[in-house]
Amino acid sequence: MEKAKILILLGSESDLPRVEDCLNFLNDMGVSFKIDISSAHRQPEKTIAHAKKAREEGFEVIIAFAGMAAHLPGVIASHTTLPVIGVPLSGGVLNGVDALLSIVQMPKGIPVATVGIDASRNAAILACKILGIKHKDIEKKIEKMKLDMKNQDRSISEKLKKYMKD
Amino acid sequence: MEKAKILILLGSESDLPRVEDCLNFLNDMGVSFKIDISSAHRQPEKTIAHAKKAREEGFEVIIAFAGMAAHLPGVIASHTTLPVIGVPLSGGVLNGVDALLSIVQMPKGIPVATVGIDASRNAAILACKILGIKHKDIEKKIEKMKLDMKNQDRSISEKLKKYMKD
Amino acid sequence: MEKAKILILLGSESDLPRVEDCLNFLNDMGVSFKIDISSAHRQPEKTIAHAKKAREEGFEVIIAFAGMAAHLPGVIASHTTLPVIGVPLSGGVLNGVDALLSIVQMPKGIPVATVGIDASRNAAILACKILGIKHKDIEKKIEKMKLDMKNQDRSISEKLKKYMKD
Amino acid sequence: MEKAKILILLGSESDLPRVEDCLNFLNDMGVSFKIDISSAHRQPEKTIAHAKKAREEGFEVIIAFAGMAAHLPGVIASHTTLPVIGVPLSGGVLNGVDALLSIVQMPKGIPVATVGIDASRNAAILACKILGIKHKDIEKKIEKMKLDMKNQDRSISEKLKKYMKD
Amino acid sequence: MEKAKILILLGSESDLPRVEDCLNFLNDMGVSFKIDISSAHRQPEKTIAHAKKAREEGFEVIIAFAGMAAHLPGVIASHTTLPVIGVPLSGGVLNGVDALLSIVQMPKGIPVATVGIDASRNAAILACKILGIKHKDIEKKIEKMKLDMKNQDRSISEKLKKYMKD
Amino acid sequence: MEKAKILILLGSESDLPRVEDCLNFLNDMGVSFKIDISSAHRQPEKTIAHAKKAREEGFEVIIAFAGMAAHLPGVIASHTTLPVIGVPLSGGVLNGVDALLSIVQMPKGIPVATVGIDASRNAAILACKILGIKHKDIEKKIEKMKLDMKNQDRSISEKLKKYMKD
Amino acid sequence: MEKAKILILLGSESDLPRVEDCLNFLNDMGVSFKIDISSAHRQPEKTIAHAKKAREEGFEVIIAFAGMAAHLPGVIASHTTLPVIGVPLSGGVLNGVDALLSIVQMPKGIPVATVGIDASRNAAILACKILGIKHKDIEKKIEKMKLDMKNQDRSISEKLKKYMKD
Amino acid sequence: MEKAKILILLGSESDLPRVEDCLNFLNDMGVSFKIDISSAHRQPEKTIAHAKKAREEGFEVIIAFAGMAAHLPGVIASHTTLPVIGVPLSGGVLNGVDALLSIVQMPKGIPVATVGIDASRNAAILACKILGIKHKDIEKKIEKMKLDMKNQDRSISEKLKKYMKD
Repeated sequence: MEKAKILILLGSESDLPRVEDCLNFLNDMGVSFKIDISSAHRQPEKTIAHAKKAREEGFEVIIAFAGMAAHLPGVIASHTTLPVIGVPLSGGVLNGVDALLSIVQMPKGIPVATVGIDASRNAAILACKILGIKHKDIEKKIEKMKLDMKNQDRSISEKLKKYMKD
Repeated sequence: MEKAKILILLGSESDLPRVEDCLNFLNDMGVSFKIDISSAHRQPEKTIAHAKKAREEGFEVIIAFAGMAAHLPGVIASHTTLPVIGVPLSGGVLNGVDALLSIVQMPKGIPVATVGIDASRNAAILACKILGIKHKDIEKKIEKMKLDMKNQDRSISEKLKKYMKD
Repeated sequence: MEKAKILILLGSESDLPRVEDCLNFLNDMGVSFKIDISSAHRQPEKTIAHAKKAREEGFEVIIAFAGMAAHLPGVIASHTTLPVIGVPLSGGVLNGVDALLSIVQMPKGIPVATVGIDASRNAAILACKILGIKHKDIEKKIEKMKLDMKNQDRSISEKLKKYMKD
Repeated sequence: MEKAKILILLGSESDLPRVEDCLNFLNDMGVSFKIDISSAHRQPEKTIAHAKKAREEGFEVIIAFAGMAAHLPGVIASHTTLPVIGVPLSGGVLNGVDALLSIVQMPKGIPVATVGIDASRNAAILACKILGIKHKDIEKKIEKMKLDMKNQDRSISEKLKKYMKD
Repeated sequence: MEKAKILILLGSESDLPRVEDCLNFLNDMGVSFKIDISSAHRQPEKTIAHAKKAREEGFEVIIAFAGMAAHLPGVIASHTTLPVIGVPLSGGVLNGVDALLSIVQMPKGIPVATVGIDASRNAAILACKILGIKHKDIEKKIEKMKLDMKNQDRSISEKLKKYMKD
Repeated sequence: MEKAKILILLGSESDLPRVEDCLNFLNDMGVSFKIDISSAHRQPEKTIAHAKKAREEGFEVIIAFAGMAAHLPGVIASHTTLPVIGVPLSGGVLNGVDALLSIVQMPKGIPVATVGIDASRNAAILACKILGIKHKDIEKKIEKMKLDMKNQDRSISEKLKKYMKD
Repeated sequence: MEKAKILILLGSESDLPRVEDCLNFLNDMGVSFKIDISSAHRQPEKTIAHAKKAREEGFEVIIAFAGMAAHLPGVIASHTTLPVIGVPLSGGVLNGVDALLSIVQMPKGIPVATVGIDASRNAAILACKILGIKHKDIEKKIEKMKLDMKNQDRSISEKLKKYMKD
Repeated sequence: MEKAKILILLGSESDLPRVEDCLNFLNDMGVSFKIDISSAHRQPEKTIAHAKKAREEGFEVIIAFAGMAAHLPGVIASHTTLPVIGVPLSGGVLNGVDALLSIVQMPKGIPVATVGIDASRNAAILACKILGIKHKDIEKKIEKMKLDMKNQDRSISEKLKKYMKD
């Protein structure tokens, strides 16, 4: 079975700092990915080319980051049958609400799997959950991450005791 | 000088009733237009083709109607140097606010001239105001429409007198 | 390879009419599913049981419908490693905005793949796109649906000609 | 009669600074409490266990703090018959509006007593008002706090006189 | 121990239909109540009198319904140490969002236990949960209601089977 | 002393039904008024003329009704030193929120006394309260209206008794 | 004729910095005023006393500043026949939108003349416009301020010329 | 053919920093313009004079910047037949949403071509696209800018490679 691969696209260079959580998680999970910048509006042909050849190049999930009138995830979704995860970014006066609505309110026929505003790490986790239905090793790692989350706050519970009077 | 021409695109057949105010105004003004349905997401290649050849086919302004995550005006604007007017439509649970934000909050480099939610007639008037900087006959007609508006409420003022006690 | 299976959960009986678009699409695609009602708040143990045993019962994607303070998709996502699609429903005074925010703004670690408000059919399509990375037959059907969408508006374009004066 | 006790749960360590107003007020009032961290999504079993045994452990009111898609108060309320106070937190791009709607718009059968965004101290006061229907000493202290509030601005009124010309 | 009693106030006669769910629940639970109309703005003295003598008259919880700039719950809360539950009503062009914010965003010192927009029945349940910390019989009934909710959807699950192909 | 007079302007004939509450109240109070239609945008010169000569014609307060991008009250306020009351109207997809913000968020130097959305009768009452600082007869009538409001709900309180079990 | 007098009330000491623009303007205009702090919720009796005796003490307009669930202007308006100007303050996570709705959306019978969020100076100008219908000296000063505004930007127009190429 | 000319108006000196992107773009494109400050409310006669004589002075497009209850673009549009571009500015507690709605939701007959909040450069580009239907040299430059945008991110794509593991 081929190696799981994710294609990550972002609309502008200024979005890069908010993409890092996503990249770090994928590297930790050992999932390979390709990342490129491709504005839906300033570079429409490049964006369409990315979307159209993604499946044949072996990608299985696409993650697209975009702010404001965030068309990138929708444009990509209209040119591929792969699942597309959209991450609305908050870099504007409307704090990402414009991006959220532009990504999630897609017309019939072209859904985008939307995660929260700036939810870079959650986009990576969702991609891995999707890959996990096919790749058992990724499912295993997600299962482990889930268990780790349950324990990570144990030391904090200890520290909270100082607030409680006897 | 060539005849003024407007290209009108809508994302879905269900938008048609709200386009009629626009078409009627253009017919009244004697401005010729071509109208087609072309979903940005379900028919991306058709949409791009429309945008790319609009100028060489003699169009001077494009009007695009779209609801929800309304990408149509933005997608068109990214494939042409013609001015694009975007009309956000209210056909959704968010009453057109999602469409308004998806159309107006465009990234740097690709503006869309946005009018009000469901403002079909105003889109036609704006198109004519734009054409009027080149076509003197259209400017004349807009000037006349402007004068007519000032007088149209005169009879109403008369009727309002019944509410006033002496 | 096992047959693709989807688990569909809804929070209340009153949500059922809006689920039908989803069920019809899955039946058309030949994807088998199980549907049950399970309120996150009124039946928490049943909900958790559904989520916990979903993978071992052979489900590969879960779709959860919920309105208002829509916790159902998030509660399910916290008890499984399967991808969970959340559909915010508009049945309340806030027209589904409350449900949208309650579903999409998940904390780090527990993403939900959110689709538009009342986007029942899109939830089914997204589920199939996800299944398509593993099941070639489903990918083929999604590819065909995509082609059909491009052609379906052709007759409408014909009808629009009546609006254009020669 | 047993000593009044409050259970305080928060979804994440980063919420702790905003909880302090609540803890200080309870300590000033001499109301004992237990505080723990328990994410509704990352630690669902721990959260449910807390809720289920709260009454038998002698707690009479539960206060839950949560931000974004703030499910913690609702999840707790679905596993106990004790009154649950929910405090929406502002730590996100939507300034707590998402948390407010996620907490207050609960389905029929499972109410959460919601206070204002970041209203940590008010949550403590509300808890004491609730306890006051059973514990006369707490009612007395709330009565005294109420009287103190009426007087605390008296010196300010004096200072304001400098703004008034004779 | 005295009989549990709830004081219910509403701001206008037009709010009455939305109060009935609350009254029916309380009657079903056997909790006695007194209901009166008392506008915070049109009848301020009557409202204050209700609030000030509520405790000595034996009331233990107050529920206040109000729409638009919904001050009634807050005005009452400022004149009593009893817990006050506020129910924002949707009767206005803003669908109750104005009422929700006017009730929940109270200043430091005067909390209102806010439930969802039009959440009449949930206000009654919350009142009973509060009374339940003192009155064992009410706690018992709430516990029973909670169990009933878990079972009520069982027949629906049966009916859903018709949607599933074999 | 001259008779109190109010100038009432509305932006469009379709606003008339929502103006009637205002006119009826003024007629009941015996305050004379003049009403006219004058769109800020379609009839700017007429609107400015109304504003500029209002004071010399003996008007003491101006009430302006407008919907959507409701500029009428602000345009009038910029051409007169009389107090201007603005009434945002709900006739649009945004339910009057657009009108409210367009009227109330005026720049420094040009305030508009804004009342609630569609608050036609309240606009008339506010006008009378303003006139009441000069005209003792109007103050007297407002005082009487205030007393009447306190009593009007007395019969309703009686009717509510049927809901209370003994 | 008695000297014009304005009563200014604010809900909390923290509001004071935003009140200064108002006080400065009134001092510049030579209008006398009295200012006091009086929380609608923490000091309800003091607030009511202020409102009830305002007219007999010679005040002609009341200005009330309040944030969040801003009840102060409404509570005052319900206890006086004087015109009440409400200033919504932005000191909260909702940036004053909660205060705006809590002040402007008053029920029938009790209007508040609402100005923009934090519009301290505009509140003072509106008060003077209201006083100007009775006090000719104040009207004269407002007229002069209006003329000054027209000229104040003349030097700026000069400076802008540097941006224009020849 | 006369030289293309744009008239730029802003409502207040404090808006100037956000206008610079617009001016720089026009200077780069070699399009001449005139800029002036002219508040719609504080200097209404000056504003009207600008609008009325704009066409005869040879201007072909007007760009108006305004914040809050942003009436400037609409007031100008009501006094000219030239196309008016409106730029909502974010300088207020509502982050420009008030300005956006005040500019875009114009009544029938008087459209404003609205761009995004603070979208200064996009306003200039839209103006050039409009001029481009008449002035071939401007169309050429817009065409070139469009090509440049496609290439500008090429070096960024290179840099992104460091994030990808082999």
